[in-house]
Amino acid sequence: MYLDFKFADDRPAYIQVKDYMKRLMTTGALQADQKLPSTRELSVLLRVSRNTVLSAYSDLEDEGYIYAVKGQGHFVVPSVSGVSVQREGKRLDWAPHLNDYARLAEENDLMKHGIRAEKGAISFTSIAPDEKLFDLQNVKRAFLDRMSLEGEVLLNYGYAKGYKPLIDYLLRYMENKGVNIQGKDLLITSGFTEALSLVLSTLNQGHGRILCENPTHHTAIKNFKMHGYDITGVEMEPDGISLTGLARELSKRPYDLAYLVPSYHNPTGIVMSHQKRLEALRLLNEYQIPVIEDGFNEELRYSGSHIAPLVACAGGENNSVIYLGSFSKILFPGLRVGWVLADKTLIHYLESVKRARSIHTSTLDQSLLYQYLYNGNFEKYLKRAKAEYKRKYELAIRCCEEWIPMERLSGDGGLHLFVEFGPDFRTRELLAACSAQGVVFTPGDIFHTDGGGHHTMRLGFSRVSDENIEKGIRIIGETARKLLN
Amino acid sequence: MYLDFKFADDRPAYIQVKDYMKRLMTTGALQADQKLPSTRELSVLLRVSRNTVLSAYSDLEDEGYIYAVKGQGHFVVPSVSGVSVQREGKRLDWAPHLNDYARLAEENDLMKHGIRAEKGAISFTSIAPDEKLFDLQNVKRAFLDRMSLEGEVLLNYGYAKGYKPLIDYLLRYMENKGVNIQGKDLLITSGFTEALSLVLSTLNQGHGRILCENPTHHTAIKNFKMHGYDITGVEMEPDGISLTGLARELSKRPYDLAYLVPSYHNPTGIVMSHQKRLEALRLLNEYQIPVIEDGFNEELRYSGSHIAPLVACAGGENNSVIYLGSFSKILFPGLRVGWVLADKTLIHYLESVKRARSIHTSTLDQSLLYQYLYNGNFEKYLKRAKAEYKRKYELAIRCCEEWIPMERLSGDGGLHLFVEFGPDFRTRELLAACSAQGVVFTPGDIFHTDGGGHHTMRLGFSRVSDENIEKGIRIIGETARKLLN
Repeated sequence: MYLDFKFADDRPAYIQVKDYMKRLMTTGALQADQKLPSTRELSVLLRVSRNTVLSAYSDLEDEGYIYAVKGQGHFVVPSVSGVSVQREGKRLDWAPHLNDYARLAEENDLMKHGIRAEKGAISFTSIAPDEKLFDLQNVKRAFLDRMSLEGEVLLNYGYAKGYKPLIDYLLRYMENKGVNIQGKDLLITSGFTEALSLVLSTLNQGHGRILCENPTHHTAIKNFKMHGYDITGVEMEPDGISLTGLARELSKRPYDLAYLVPSYHNPTGIVMSHQKRLEALRLLNEYQIPVIEDGFNEELRYSGSHIAPLVACAGGENNSVIYLGSFSKILFPGLRVGWVLADKTLIHYLESVKRARSIHTSTLDQSLLYQYLYNGNFEKYLKRAKAEYKRKYELAIRCCEEWIPMERLSGDGGLHLFVEFGPDFRTRELLAACSAQGVVFTPGDIFHTDGGGHHTMRLGFSRVSDENIEKGIRIIGETARKLLN
Repeated sequence: MYLDFKFADDRPAYIQVKDYMKRLMTTGALQADQKLPSTRELSVLLRVSRNTVLSAYSDLEDEGYIYAVKGQGHFVVPSVSGVSVQREGKRLDWAPHLNDYARLAEENDLMKHGIRAEKGAISFTSIAPDEKLFDLQNVKRAFLDRMSLEGEVLLNYGYAKGYKPLIDYLLRYMENKGVNIQGKDLLITSGFTEALSLVLSTLNQGHGRILCENPTHHTAIKNFKMHGYDITGVEMEPDGISLTGLARELSKRPYDLAYLVPSYHNPTGIVMSHQKRLEALRLLNEYQIPVIEDGFNEELRYSGSHIAPLVACAGGENNSVIYLGSFSKILFPGLRVGWVLADKTLIHYLESVKRARSIHTSTLDQSLLYQYLYNGNFEKYLKRAKAEYKRKYELAIRCCEEWIPMERLSGDGGLHLFVEFGPDFRTRELLAACSAQGVVFTPGDIFHTDGGGHHTMRLGFSRVSDENIEKGIRIIGETARKLLN
């Protein structure tokens, strides 16, 4: 005993001694009513100062782990000793206690069952931002600015709807995208994903069917499945969802809900044209179907005119678009902040669901983001990030065109490209062959709602160096050629 | 036009000009292909420098809102102008699209339908920490320490399970409470509430029935209802849940789940005795019922021996306790960090559900909390906070005993007391009468699972000054006496 005490230089010593002694007691190494070493003895045994031991014993007594007897020293409180090792108990089999919602979450968990890149591999699987672009100085400043202004407020409870200055900022932000916010309201969430989950948990399932683009965002497919929806995917065209396909499905059977990713669509990278947005909205509004709009990467435009989001295009009385926004893919994913902009009535209920499920989104994240945006850092960051991503985007396109024997390449901006081979090609086979050479990507089948897409793949380039973009795509292309022969 | 431009001194000017111009375009004040004022004209109209306008126009062009014609100036991109005001659309009635889960969240939302305190009122409704105790300097230091070490990592995506240093810290923390962590694992959540919601969403409902103490935590009752559980509350005794009551209910019908708050129980403030913990666990384990343990305020002990949590008392093979922990009520509620410590199998699935629902908890919150704990700030803070709360706790007890014509007072520590009047008393009436005198509290009925508790109330004292504790409780007591006569 006392020989295994490990001392860390950068933590208060008395806490380390206290924690160590607690372990000796709770594991039963020190027993009920056993006398502890005197403070002098322990200080020698653990090679710490006697004052350190005095502080530790004082705390232990204060926390009810030990008791003092005058003139005799300190003793172990009986209920503390060996607390976890004494009794009997039967093992519970957890398997029958797990429901389908949890099983589907696990089955569709790409972190558990997806593509793993070996260390040192060239990985095109990520579409997260490149952290080398992060302007940490401005983030620190935003934090300190806000803490100085209202630190106490930030650290105590906030509101389920969100941090007021950020809500107001985002309402203006959406107005600047052309949204008429009359009759609408805004709820801050812990990122896009929580926003989607809250909306799906709140909306009624009359028919149990949801409409979306095919292919579409994997996280969305996963959540639709977890909520028990039948998913109908409508085919994509170079300027977005097929309107004939959409009209066909709408006329065939009733739907509860539609989910669309109009800008830099995941995984195809396609931007839906303005005209198509108007027409798709007209159709969905005619059938009175609520539309979830995923505002994913809307900001990562490298060229062309501004195209207003669906929620801005829904004119007149049309209050059916639920816009989900986030800066995660552009700014800092570690800050879990997203938002829902939608009809007031819906937000009223979403707010209560949010409160019931997580009270509110981290106020630090919200206030830091607000201050960062307000200081004008986002504009500057975006300019820098866009220049960098645009270069990589153009490089990746050139490399794909030069090396990959593909049928089609799409991607109008954003952080990824989408490659289609001939119909008989299997990108899972390509992946296996490339992976052996240290290159991985995301096979397109996981984005498909109908079991298709085996001949497609997504290439995320945001976190790959220029050199590796060239090298990786060349390996993919050469390997694909071999497979084709 | 241009007269309503409002300039804020603390934001970059070019961003303000840019945003202002966007609004003029999207609202249709500036029309498709309309010529914008020259940079010189606009600088005069808005009283900003010409360089500011040049930057704004350059950005607007870059973002695709305007286009330049050589020698002629800048013009509005047609798809931008009046984007939200031109089209027709039918109104959607949201009411039929909302489900019971959302309706129950709204109905049971205390922020929407609970007690409102007028400004200046003495409010005993809160059990949040007193922000005057927050040590902002140490919080800032913890943030800067961590940002300097690994800022880029903190701001990019983290893991659903949580921030590794914090997970390891909390595992040690739980071991120090006597928990045997073999076969267990830990998931970080956005506070206790998300932890509870995740667990309820993951567990199978075979019988649709849950067991808990009566009264119990309102947020828990709300979430049980939202998940469609029939709730059976077992009566409380001065040392915790009635064991005869528990045995009676267990033998009567099958349950899916139990929920217990063994320490500083909300709302009664009762601490379950060590012996009772062992016996309750034995009973529940015999029936093989998973137990959610709410580790609420466990740290806010003011006297007595350390009492190990249920998860530590569950010895041998008993893997059925799901411990939900949080520092929110003691430390900083604004940091949304809680955790689940439970059997590895369950955590494996909870991790996937967490990922599907919100990807991960704010890394900033987690890393800041970790560094704050590691630096030893929590220990110091807790000592200070406990001294302060203990004084208020003792004062509140003295005042209740002096003024309130009650039948029973409970509260062994923590941030609130629980008062029971005679069975015919109505605390809702008392509340109405006190509220008129500027004093509010939480009527106990909202914590009851069986519609009872109309003669009880909870008094949260953490955010009330000493002076107002005395004044408020005297008013409550005097008003109660009048009602009794």
